[in-house]
Amino acid sequence: MTLDPEYVDAADQNPPPERLGSGVEFESPNGKLDPVIDRRVRATIASQSMLSTLEIKLLGLAPGRAELELARRADLCQQHGFIHAGAITTLVDSACGFAALTVFPLDRDVLTVDFSVSLVAPATQEKFIAVGSVLRNGRTLTTCRGEVFGVAADGSRKVVALMQATMMAVTTLSD
Amino acid sequence: MTLDPEYVDAADQNPPPERLGSGVEFESPNGKLDPVIDRRVRATIASQSMLSTLEIKLLGLAPGRAELELARRADLCQQHGFIHAGAITTLVDSACGFAALTVFPLDRDVLTVDFSVSLVAPATQEKFIAVGSVLRNGRTLTTCRGEVFGVAADGSRKVVALMQATMMAVTTLSD
Amino acid sequence: MTLDPEYVDAADQNPPPERLGSGVEFESPNGKLDPVIDRRVRATIASQSMLSTLEIKLLGLAPGRAELELARRADLCQQHGFIHAGAITTLVDSACGFAALTVFPLDRDVLTVDFSVSLVAPATQEKFIAVGSVLRNGRTLTTCRGEVFGVAADGSRKVVALMQATMMAVTTLSD
Amino acid sequence: MTLDPEYVDAADQNPPPERLGSGVEFESPNGKLDPVIDRRVRATIASQSMLSTLEIKLLGLAPGRAELELARRADLCQQHGFIHAGAITTLVDSACGFAALTVFPLDRDVLTVDFSVSLVAPATQEKFIAVGSVLRNGRTLTTCRGEVFGVAADGSRKVVALMQATMMAVTTLSD
Repeated sequence: MTLDPEYVDAADQNPPPERLGSGVEFESPNGKLDPVIDRRVRATIASQSMLSTLEIKLLGLAPGRAELELARRADLCQQHGFIHAGAITTLVDSACGFAALTVFPLDRDVLTVDFSVSLVAPATQEKFIAVGSVLRNGRTLTTCRGEVFGVAADGSRKVVALMQATMMAVTTLSD
Repeated sequence: MTLDPEYVDAADQNPPPERLGSGVEFESPNGKLDPVIDRRVRATIASQSMLSTLEIKLLGLAPGRAELELARRADLCQQHGFIHAGAITTLVDSACGFAALTVFPLDRDVLTVDFSVSLVAPATQEKFIAVGSVLRNGRTLTTCRGEVFGVAADGSRKVVALMQATMMAVTTLSD
Repeated sequence: MTLDPEYVDAADQNPPPERLGSGVEFESPNGKLDPVIDRRVRATIASQSMLSTLEIKLLGLAPGRAELELARRADLCQQHGFIHAGAITTLVDSACGFAALTVFPLDRDVLTVDFSVSLVAPATQEKFIAVGSVLRNGRTLTTCRGEVFGVAADGSRKVVALMQATMMAVTTLSD
Repeated sequence: MTLDPEYVDAADQNPPPERLGSGVEFESPNGKLDPVIDRRVRATIASQSMLSTLEIKLLGLAPGRAELELARRADLCQQHGFIHAGAITTLVDSACGFAALTVFPLDRDVLTVDFSVSLVAPATQEKFIAVGSVLRNGRTLTTCRGEVFGVAADGSRKVVALMQATMMAVTTLSD
């Protein structure tokens, strides 16, 4: 018995890690993103009304990587005045999804299959930057990790949340 | 743009759930909640601005259990017009957190430590009901499960998301 | 060396589960499994050397459901004499995977994509029963939940671990 | 209302991240581990019979970091001859737990609360190296990430699994 060649092919796309440790990168984070892909990801972001509602902004895109920002707003809090886990999750799920979209073929769209989020510190800061990174890009499934940094008024940063996510490439048939 | 028919077909295979809730129950789901705890949980819900922003409503509370509702809104969507995973997560994280709060001592408040969410079908329906249940109540950590059901215009229900969460009881010192 | 009494006390608060299994059922848990599928799943279990090494036994199969058992062994422990999280995970991942396999077409095999495990009480008992249930069966991806019950010498049961898992149907080309 | 000081204190222990991206480090990975802690972690590893059964070896320890190795064995496989997810999880859960133990006070022991594992490629290689890293060290809860690399006969490495885990510091009262 052998496995589905799709699955095995996808495994072969996995590049050798640059080093051991938590800094496993999909590929050069300094790589320049194809302008067609860049426009495509920006159009997807613009088409998500939830992101407009939360005023989430795109900070940067690179192959296998996306950075987004959420500013503190009084109407996005939980009972202690921290930014709600749901808003933080929206931010980092989006960063991971767009990171995945940068490495997908143009005829594929992204859907989140599942994610795990650890809320490691209270989200007390003035703004939040989420970084999504592709760690493994398969033909059907792509695994990402995300970090959310709270940025205080003095510019200092602290990790407030971590995500591990599985994304799926789905076919976009037509409009 | 439409989705991969495979994805949509697969969603249709999802059978209607036999009942809401989780089969491993913390305690009698018919148990009556102490009115003091009931008022306390409702006050916590009212103090979360994120829930007001999303117009999330409380449907019911019982010992170790909370049900919340989110109505579809055009400003809470992702790129295909489904309700965004971040809004669904806000809903079910809240249901799990309030379920935990119903079994905490009155001098403890709840914080989410971490959760895992599976988005099992597109959130295409008119409204969404999340049920959070306490499966294990420890002194410091409490484990919950949540389900989100999409409710169509004809009243039929379909599971769209599942959560497994760890909640922490923290001391509320004073105001 | 003994554990923090807080941790142990908390475990004792865990009520006996009312029944095995998950409240959101894929289909009738009393449904009879097709004998061809039954033989196929049993053959897969027999072909997994890790399960033989841990002496994991099949207790039962039904459509969308599998039950497995692991007996305490002195060589499967962590530092406090509890059964190791890795052995518990092996047990419940297998229960979820075989539950998925009962609902897959015969030309598809199962691979675990990802899972989240909560270790809700110390695995101190004499044996452990894992129940895996399919909650959502898609064409490519299937979502399962699992519970592990520790069974004491007097037959009483306590939940010790919970799993939420995503499984993938892969093509088996030939032998 | 204010939060439990313990929780807030713990948040303050979180060091500034060295850089954005997936390489969030707890502290200098080149830091030298206190010999007392080193002996203590090695003693804990030696006391886990599950690790002896799987012949898991310690490769290295540093503050907030542990590396372990598992060699392929024919009796640790699943149905395709890949190393079983349960064995891979045992390896990386251990790496994360021992990473946590390197940063705990000597009167605290470690228990796994929960983890999420993504199996990103088939575990086909000759041996497997797991690296566990502490990303956030609180007074009660510690968040770790782990990676498992499959190492082929020619020495090339490929990521096969990723973990995100929550660990708990528990009091060890006496022997």
